[in-house]
Amino acid sequence: MLREAVYHVAHGSYAYPVAEDTLRVTLRAAKGDLQRVSVLFQDRYGGSEPFVTNLEIAAEDEMFTYYQADLQLATKRFGYVFLLDDGKDQVFYTEKGFFADVPPNTQFHYPYIALKDLWEPPKWAQGAVVYQIFPERFANGDPANDPPNVEPWDALPQVDSQKGGDLQGVIDRFEHLVELGVDVIYLTPIFQAPSNHKYDTVDYYTIDPHFGDEETVRRMIELAHEHDIKVVFDAVFNHAGFGFFAFQDVLEHGEESEYAHWFNIDSFPVQTDPPNYETFANQIATMPKLMTHENDVKEYFLEVGRYWVQEFGIDGWRLDVANEIDHHFWREFRQAVKAENPEALIVGELWHEASEWVRGDQFDSVMNYSLQYACLEFFAKATIRARTFANRLAKVQMNHTHAVNLSMFNLLDSHDTERFLTSCGGSLQKLALAAAFQLTYEGAPMIYYGDEVGMEGLTDPDCRRGMIWDPEEQNLELLAWYKQLISLRKEHEVLRFGRCRTVWADSATNIYGFVRFDESEQILVLINNQAKEESIDLKEIVWPIAVPKQVQDLVTKEKFALGEVSLAAYGVRILT
Amino acid sequence: MLREAVYHVAHGSYAYPVAEDTLRVTLRAAKGDLQRVSVLFQDRYGGSEPFVTNLEIAAEDEMFTYYQADLQLATKRFGYVFLLDDGKDQVFYTEKGFFADVPPNTQFHYPYIALKDLWEPPKWAQGAVVYQIFPERFANGDPANDPPNVEPWDALPQVDSQKGGDLQGVIDRFEHLVELGVDVIYLTPIFQAPSNHKYDTVDYYTIDPHFGDEETVRRMIELAHEHDIKVVFDAVFNHAGFGFFAFQDVLEHGEESEYAHWFNIDSFPVQTDPPNYETFANQIATMPKLMTHENDVKEYFLEVGRYWVQEFGIDGWRLDVANEIDHHFWREFRQAVKAENPEALIVGELWHEASEWVRGDQFDSVMNYSLQYACLEFFAKATIRARTFANRLAKVQMNHTHAVNLSMFNLLDSHDTERFLTSCGGSLQKLALAAAFQLTYEGAPMIYYGDEVGMEGLTDPDCRRGMIWDPEEQNLELLAWYKQLISLRKEHEVLRFGRCRTVWADSATNIYGFVRFDESEQILVLINNQAKEESIDLKEIVWPIAVPKQVQDLVTKEKFALGEVSLAAYGVRILT
Repeated sequence: MLREAVYHVAHGSYAYPVAEDTLRVTLRAAKGDLQRVSVLFQDRYGGSEPFVTNLEIAAEDEMFTYYQADLQLATKRFGYVFLLDDGKDQVFYTEKGFFADVPPNTQFHYPYIALKDLWEPPKWAQGAVVYQIFPERFANGDPANDPPNVEPWDALPQVDSQKGGDLQGVIDRFEHLVELGVDVIYLTPIFQAPSNHKYDTVDYYTIDPHFGDEETVRRMIELAHEHDIKVVFDAVFNHAGFGFFAFQDVLEHGEESEYAHWFNIDSFPVQTDPPNYETFANQIATMPKLMTHENDVKEYFLEVGRYWVQEFGIDGWRLDVANEIDHHFWREFRQAVKAENPEALIVGELWHEASEWVRGDQFDSVMNYSLQYACLEFFAKATIRARTFANRLAKVQMNHTHAVNLSMFNLLDSHDTERFLTSCGGSLQKLALAAAFQLTYEGAPMIYYGDEVGMEGLTDPDCRRGMIWDPEEQNLELLAWYKQLISLRKEHEVLRFGRCRTVWADSATNIYGFVRFDESEQILVLINNQAKEESIDLKEIVWPIAVPKQVQDLVTKEKFALGEVSLAAYGVRILT
Repeated sequence: MLREAVYHVAHGSYAYPVAEDTLRVTLRAAKGDLQRVSVLFQDRYGGSEPFVTNLEIAAEDEMFTYYQADLQLATKRFGYVFLLDDGKDQVFYTEKGFFADVPPNTQFHYPYIALKDLWEPPKWAQGAVVYQIFPERFANGDPANDPPNVEPWDALPQVDSQKGGDLQGVIDRFEHLVELGVDVIYLTPIFQAPSNHKYDTVDYYTIDPHFGDEETVRRMIELAHEHDIKVVFDAVFNHAGFGFFAFQDVLEHGEESEYAHWFNIDSFPVQTDPPNYETFANQIATMPKLMTHENDVKEYFLEVGRYWVQEFGIDGWRLDVANEIDHHFWREFRQAVKAENPEALIVGELWHEASEWVRGDQFDSVMNYSLQYACLEFFAKATIRARTFANRLAKVQMNHTHAVNLSMFNLLDSHDTERFLTSCGGSLQKLALAAAFQLTYEGAPMIYYGDEVGMEGLTDPDCRRGMIWDPEEQNLELLAWYKQLISLRKEHEVLRFGRCRTVWADSATNIYGFVRFDESEQILVLINNQAKEESIDLKEIVWPIAVPKQVQDLVTKEKFALGEVSLAAYGVRILT
């Protein structure tokens, strides 16, 4: 037994409550090393013989197998040890290591399922279809508020291009969103700022006049809510724009400014070229970093967070460069926002391992760039094959609780990446396949505006082209595919909330498959990511225990004689 | 290379800031598997070639070697990968796994050292000598406030014994604490409660009349502060006592009580035998569990937390059954208490793996029962030997940041365990050796009242005997030993704040040794935990890089010819 590979801790994604009396535990071991894993659990104060439950394989990556079980105890206080069996040896794995017999005081303890720790992101966000809008490029509904020097809508954008897109445009084109079937729109920043992307906020309380005004925002939100669509705004608290009043005050009054401590300035007078103050990334003078650990700065931005939820009824915040602001700020931000609306969603922009931020005290969700990379490499670039793809997904999945996984913003691309279709070398088949994965897999699939009609573009600024509205220019077949997938998702609750398990990952054929399942429904998705047709034998599938035998039989015997199913080249089969 | 054993995450004890521009990273690998570990790091936005630093062995346990390095970057934003070398292969270890060359977007990221996350427990608590007082048994300074039926001071206590100890007794005997040299006194609960231990609080705002009154408390705290000794109280928020006003109200008014939701009552009327409500542990009717997730309950107890800090100037709280209350409560508790006094200490009672609670948002420290078990088994019971002892210590050490390790309440025993001397079978040599370890090792050594004069006792209630004050009954030699060790600790700041590394762990001879070190001072502690004298060769020690060569030479060449040092049976050598 490879003991060095065995891992469990009694917190985080390895031990978390899924009900008032139920703890989900995960044990990691070397891939394929163990024949059986069981867990002996009891009230941590003892008093009765332990219960024994077998763990089921939940996921596998290149090195590890992950085993999972749900433990139920009315007293909510768990003491437990694992029993590992590799066919040769049986050994107990405890908080203090491996033992042939369990010594006293060595159990893992999950001390108590406190109601408050039985946390999950807002239900509406779990599995929701999110649509990302870059307002300057989505639709120009009000040419009267256009900035000067607006370029033609369909000219390729440059870094500083302005095209006149605005919130009236979102309102005018709302029908598109409704018909597509989105549940959430997330708008990149709309507060007053000089750039087209508006990540250089000048006034957090003013809608950029080129985008509209408070009245336009209210109408947009009202319209969205009429259609049961949630609205998420983008907040940039890591840094301000150059024109932000506090920074301007420091420029004007130097050291004497009452806002001098809002920024990290090396020496006075302030110099801007090169900047002698801390900025976003490396010396971007127009984006001075905000000292959010200072009380008054913190309060200022907590109030911004509250204000738009309270006064305009937005449904959540996406937080820019969220990981460069301290955890304490985000904890208070969560309290402030949730006090206004406990159902508000908080999503952090993080490109890397994010478990630290989604523990119930900070964010509900993050941008799932780990999944984005995996999709890019598997579907678009073909630099990894099915088994590696499955490994990548497993790592992300095992790193979070189920409810967090359901809420991750699963993106294929964004305003910060190349368009996915472009990454696919323009192959609609590949994009269609990736979209099928995205819209059936666990999480909140996020569609970057225009992907659904076949928009292309290299990375920023090219990925921010004007939305294609002319049906003759749109790829209507692709659009229909997106609509079909989203409809399917809406018809089957299991695609929103169900658990998710990889059941097929064959690098030779490049076929990848997974099951979504809950107590009442099961859906099998099979993806053939290769240029030729392939048949596979479904009898090889190891089904999750929760999938009833008759369903397994139904699929393998009745739907497919001898369990054989054919998959088209770059094709998907969704068995509901 | 055993890849399955390799572990790093960019948070927790594996990546934490130790200065505004310095990140400490730890990498775990199979024991002895690697010849060299280095880290390539740079600003996470790139812009320059990476720096390369070698990692040093920080600790080893039975399966793993832990490597550590401090990375410095003025921009505070870290992207990094490890380079592992086992003598045969060189491979990069990244957030996305192992690679021969580092692909894009695979670095580990510690996104930014935010000032607020550069957290540590109060400096005064780091390495402080703590003295635990069980007031009912420490000293009876005011017989006038004795409860009825007080038993003779030196009679063996029963579960319900009352002996008349009180706060005036603490005041009267303060000289003992001062002479001993303690930095902190921690008193088990002193609020009004019927039991002798007072973990069944009736009134969180009233000093138990058998212990004294507000005036006595003020005098005691004033006296302590005059001697620069901090005072920590014990708070029981997991459950109330039976007589707590809210529970009494529920008993009286049932479902109609405005406090009905303060408890978890199965059905009305309330029944007490057996209890039909949730209690501490299993059905302890006198300790109804408090529903601290309810807003008004939470606010009530946050106010208790604030009140004693604000009105009486206590220096901290030790929190009873801390792990059965939700994390959200503790986060707010921390905010409430630290708002009154940012230097207040918050210590949780946890008997198990505690990393989840000492991340900067909840507790500063916990009772270090993991270390207690290790000491019990190594020094007292001799059920483990030096290498296993070192392994246990390594696990605890690598599980926390350095500043948290310095603040852990390192206890040999407590009011909840057998007396350590009794566990030693009465062997003063063994206790003396354990005390030498406790008082030189990293952490805040906690002395349970009377251990220093040789008190014995089986577990509760026997471990709560009346303190021995008669010098003829006290073991004065042991007391002198404690005083000597504490003086040594005070003379050498490195024993309080210095880093700590095991440099000797030989199960054959049962000799264990460690170095405390900082930039300016180094102390080597060697412990011979066996019944015979032994000589060892100090030239075998692998010194931490921070220990200057001339110090190493001084120890091995000048202090001891040929580096050989003799150790008495159950003896300790402390080389300063």
